[in-house]
Amino acid sequence: MATTYVAELSGVFVPVVTPFRDDAVDYDSLRSNLRGLGQTDVTGYFALGSNGEFHSLSDSEQFRVLEVFAEEAGDKVVMVGISRESTRESLEMAKRAAAMGFSYVSALTPSYFASKTTEAVLQAYYTRLADSSPLPLLVYNAPGFAAGVSVSTRLVSVLAQHPNVAGIKDSSKPGPFQYLAHVDPTAEFAVLAGSASFFYPALHAGAAGGVLSMANYLPSVCVRLHELFLDGRHQEAGTLHSRVLRVNAAVSGLFGVAGVKAAMSLLGYRGGQPRHPFSALADEERMVVAGKIAAEGFRIDA
Amino acid sequence: MATTYVAELSGVFVPVVTPFRDDAVDYDSLRSNLRGLGQTDVTGYFALGSNGEFHSLSDSEQFRVLEVFAEEAGDKVVMVGISRESTRESLEMAKRAAAMGFSYVSALTPSYFASKTTEAVLQAYYTRLADSSPLPLLVYNAPGFAAGVSVSTRLVSVLAQHPNVAGIKDSSKPGPFQYLAHVDPTAEFAVLAGSASFFYPALHAGAAGGVLSMANYLPSVCVRLHELFLDGRHQEAGTLHSRVLRVNAAVSGLFGVAGVKAAMSLLGYRGGQPRHPFSALADEERMVVAGKIAAEGFRIDA
Amino acid sequence: MATTYVAELSGVFVPVVTPFRDDAVDYDSLRSNLRGLGQTDVTGYFALGSNGEFHSLSDSEQFRVLEVFAEEAGDKVVMVGISRESTRESLEMAKRAAAMGFSYVSALTPSYFASKTTEAVLQAYYTRLADSSPLPLLVYNAPGFAAGVSVSTRLVSVLAQHPNVAGIKDSSKPGPFQYLAHVDPTAEFAVLAGSASFFYPALHAGAAGGVLSMANYLPSVCVRLHELFLDGRHQEAGTLHSRVLRVNAAVSGLFGVAGVKAAMSLLGYRGGQPRHPFSALADEERMVVAGKIAAEGFRIDA
Amino acid sequence: MATTYVAELSGVFVPVVTPFRDDAVDYDSLRSNLRGLGQTDVTGYFALGSNGEFHSLSDSEQFRVLEVFAEEAGDKVVMVGISRESTRESLEMAKRAAAMGFSYVSALTPSYFASKTTEAVLQAYYTRLADSSPLPLLVYNAPGFAAGVSVSTRLVSVLAQHPNVAGIKDSSKPGPFQYLAHVDPTAEFAVLAGSASFFYPALHAGAAGGVLSMANYLPSVCVRLHELFLDGRHQEAGTLHSRVLRVNAAVSGLFGVAGVKAAMSLLGYRGGQPRHPFSALADEERMVVAGKIAAEGFRIDA
Repeated sequence: MATTYVAELSGVFVPVVTPFRDDAVDYDSLRSNLRGLGQTDVTGYFALGSNGEFHSLSDSEQFRVLEVFAEEAGDKVVMVGISRESTRESLEMAKRAAAMGFSYVSALTPSYFASKTTEAVLQAYYTRLADSSPLPLLVYNAPGFAAGVSVSTRLVSVLAQHPNVAGIKDSSKPGPFQYLAHVDPTAEFAVLAGSASFFYPALHAGAAGGVLSMANYLPSVCVRLHELFLDGRHQEAGTLHSRVLRVNAAVSGLFGVAGVKAAMSLLGYRGGQPRHPFSALADEERMVVAGKIAAEGFRIDA
Repeated sequence: MATTYVAELSGVFVPVVTPFRDDAVDYDSLRSNLRGLGQTDVTGYFALGSNGEFHSLSDSEQFRVLEVFAEEAGDKVVMVGISRESTRESLEMAKRAAAMGFSYVSALTPSYFASKTTEAVLQAYYTRLADSSPLPLLVYNAPGFAAGVSVSTRLVSVLAQHPNVAGIKDSSKPGPFQYLAHVDPTAEFAVLAGSASFFYPALHAGAAGGVLSMANYLPSVCVRLHELFLDGRHQEAGTLHSRVLRVNAAVSGLFGVAGVKAAMSLLGYRGGQPRHPFSALADEERMVVAGKIAAEGFRIDA
Repeated sequence: MATTYVAELSGVFVPVVTPFRDDAVDYDSLRSNLRGLGQTDVTGYFALGSNGEFHSLSDSEQFRVLEVFAEEAGDKVVMVGISRESTRESLEMAKRAAAMGFSYVSALTPSYFASKTTEAVLQAYYTRLADSSPLPLLVYNAPGFAAGVSVSTRLVSVLAQHPNVAGIKDSSKPGPFQYLAHVDPTAEFAVLAGSASFFYPALHAGAAGGVLSMANYLPSVCVRLHELFLDGRHQEAGTLHSRVLRVNAAVSGLFGVAGVKAAMSLLGYRGGQPRHPFSALADEERMVVAGKIAAEGFRIDA
Repeated sequence: MATTYVAELSGVFVPVVTPFRDDAVDYDSLRSNLRGLGQTDVTGYFALGSNGEFHSLSDSEQFRVLEVFAEEAGDKVVMVGISRESTRESLEMAKRAAAMGFSYVSALTPSYFASKTTEAVLQAYYTRLADSSPLPLLVYNAPGFAAGVSVSTRLVSVLAQHPNVAGIKDSSKPGPFQYLAHVDPTAEFAVLAGSASFFYPALHAGAAGGVLSMANYLPSVCVRLHELFLDGRHQEAGTLHSRVLRVNAAVSGLFGVAGVKAAMSLLGYRGGQPRHPFSALADEERMVVAGKIAAEGFRIDA
């Protein structure tokens, strides 16, 4: 299987949001969104990621969310978020994901004891996970959601040699450029850009694809950007990249998941609300999102 | 009940560690430690706090830990950690704590979406918790365990007016001095110092007590420091404070929970190991801890 | 001389502000302020510190400011800020301070290359300064003005042994409690609290005095707090500490030097304006400052 | 003149280091380096930047350094660093740079009072500078050298409209991608990448060029990367980008200016030493630098 990581993980992944209604998970809206996304050319889904607010769900809610994915994924590749603070708990989730028939798992760096989470601690965590997980593992590097904890280039280059480590999803501010330069190009190791801010530049530096919050509301635009790159149409791609970047800054950048959900509702998906203590956008915030999408000329695209 | 918060929360609380053996919770050692602590004059326990590695436990492990507390707490005051990222999950824990007969609950600031966790979000979180929790609530402010998220003095002064908010446990680096100055002195609101670094100075500034990792291994020393303060023996207290501070810096400061567990094992308690991916101290690290405890002249004290 | 450091540095120091008018240094107002402060019981002055906006002055302006201090200091102890990024430049300032007859120099940690400013770099800096400075040196620890760079407790305990190191002025958020615990109590080494937030608690932990921005506008209140401590009147002191802390949070805390200057103008001193690009408080901000001073019952006190 | 900014600032700029010998500026080595660089196809120089350790030089040393630039610059474009904490001091430097016949000035964000340096303060600073500077201004955004202070995309888009603002040099970790997306493409506003980490990806996103520490020791390699981009040879460029990035991470990334100086000495330039309290690389550190340069197959290139 190792020979297929980069090929299988190329293109656009959707970090699918979890819609809420009256603070309860709205499984019907989730199902509806997956059916819509299923008709686009995105490569796959990231289930139970940050945009999925996995950290605000109970274990039983997480399991029900995964069931909806299992029923609706079709031929899309699904990577399942298994992020927990202890290796033991993360592995339990990996086993469940395998039992349900998914393809990959992805684990964020532990970060509760941030100042003690050294490179050695992260190496212990990911090595044991990779050794024992029944599914290939993607490292998830996102210091903004992990108290600043980040995986070093040295550790990534070590993990890239592990046959059960499939790649890294990077959502750091510097982006995955350092990782791309430090990974053996012959290794079967996929680097996925975790933000539309640097998705297109990262493709030029060797990234296989991206996990893009924008793909929740403009999936075909994201796919189009990847296709323009593959076709060598760099002029058009550069222009589309700038439009994408401005919208992304006004949606995820300003408002996070609440912004993504508002944009989904504007563009034909069912975003629902964030879970308390977070709240839906105020009217004037929603107008910022709508205005920016309109200014860049994007419309319902799926 | 409101009239008793400050009186009931005065003195020393132990943020009780969770011992592990072979990466499984060692309930017997936990029970043994509680029996030892039960013979000291500490005021009470903080169950499922940071030192208790609550974030590395499954829900079912957390419930079993609470059962041990219920059986062994005797007349000690128990505050239960209910920290979750969503209000709904935190409230579930609060209800369980009430059903099991505990006295207080304590909730850390949500922090996964740190950059979006504004003062308004924190106010929404704590207000709904306080409104609905069957037990009085202590705010838990610990930016070092919460990606830098911190409760403002303004919000603390607002929450202090809520009849179901009993106080704040502060483990920030600046310590609780600002909070102490901004809380109405006539309010029934207890400020607890979350570190031995500033426990004694904070008493002078109006703190009711402290939740001190050191109380896991030198409980009577911590109690003694409080008693010297109450007795106005400031010269002796100042000297003991300095010794305490130096040991604390070498244990929690350098090594976190792994250091606390090593110190416990040196001083007659059953610290056990941290949970993977963290590990027990190396021999030379343990010698640093032992050397500092000896240098300051502390011995088994319980 | 070494035997007098702690005695000579006890009490309250004023980090004297530099007033500006039309963006030029207003030496007359500086002189006027020093004459007012000269009639209080403050121990001395910190010339060219952060509140003095030394970093915004040209070298020739700094020298003229020092001339005013030389003429107006009377019997007050003057420590001169010599903070530069290179050892060589700092030493040049130290020599000038000595030639002008001042008593102490004080140097902030270099911080331009913050991520490379290791403990070894700081040790090299302070050791060479102490070896070569004609005046005894105070370390100035203020991570908030130094990109987070901070002096470790280990380095402070080493420097405390140097006969030409007189002490440390600490303006960090945690305050000087760690330093106080790690310095040999028999060493002639003065710890000065750099903020009214923890001045009074720090006295209980062994501090010799404080360098307090508040002493620019309420010098006698600060002196009174120190006297109450010396007299063992801890109840009164604790109450005054809380009033001081609330005012300080509303002045320096909210508004920095611009707030200090506004408070000075309200209380009979000549604060002038901050230097561009900073600006004087807006009217509503000045009302916040005035309101808080009034609410705590402080009036012109010098 | 405004119509030439982007054209004139295209390509590679060298942030020229200041060599020291026995802690004194080694003007002869500086002159020698400029003569070597003058034979390459770099577009120009950044004098008195971070790599030039401007912050460790006295004013008179800065003026002598500029004289060497004036004598040796030939037809290269020179931008002069004028970074000071006060607008007045920065403007003084801008006037001097103009009087000496240079082309551009560049100013880092003030940062001493980092927590008070709001967007409004930065706007006041850059607007007054741009209004009054006799030379066109480049904003210098480098939060790593400015206590985390950073220019917002909003402020950049405003400043880009000012006829005397020529562009921005961005050395932030996220890189200039956001700025590139928020600047009106028809404005005469040049975005320069401040690090080899993202120089090549930034060209794809619209950057005009880069100010690259690596250009001190491998100037023609940097120029070659730009040329490959201009020629549309993206495959070759991507490969060279990865080699460049790995070397840059081992030189500037690990060791900062001391690393750049060591690499210069290995590659035929006269790096000299950093100024105290910083020191030259230890032997084993120098071997890391030499080993990485050799491993990537780079040799003396000028």
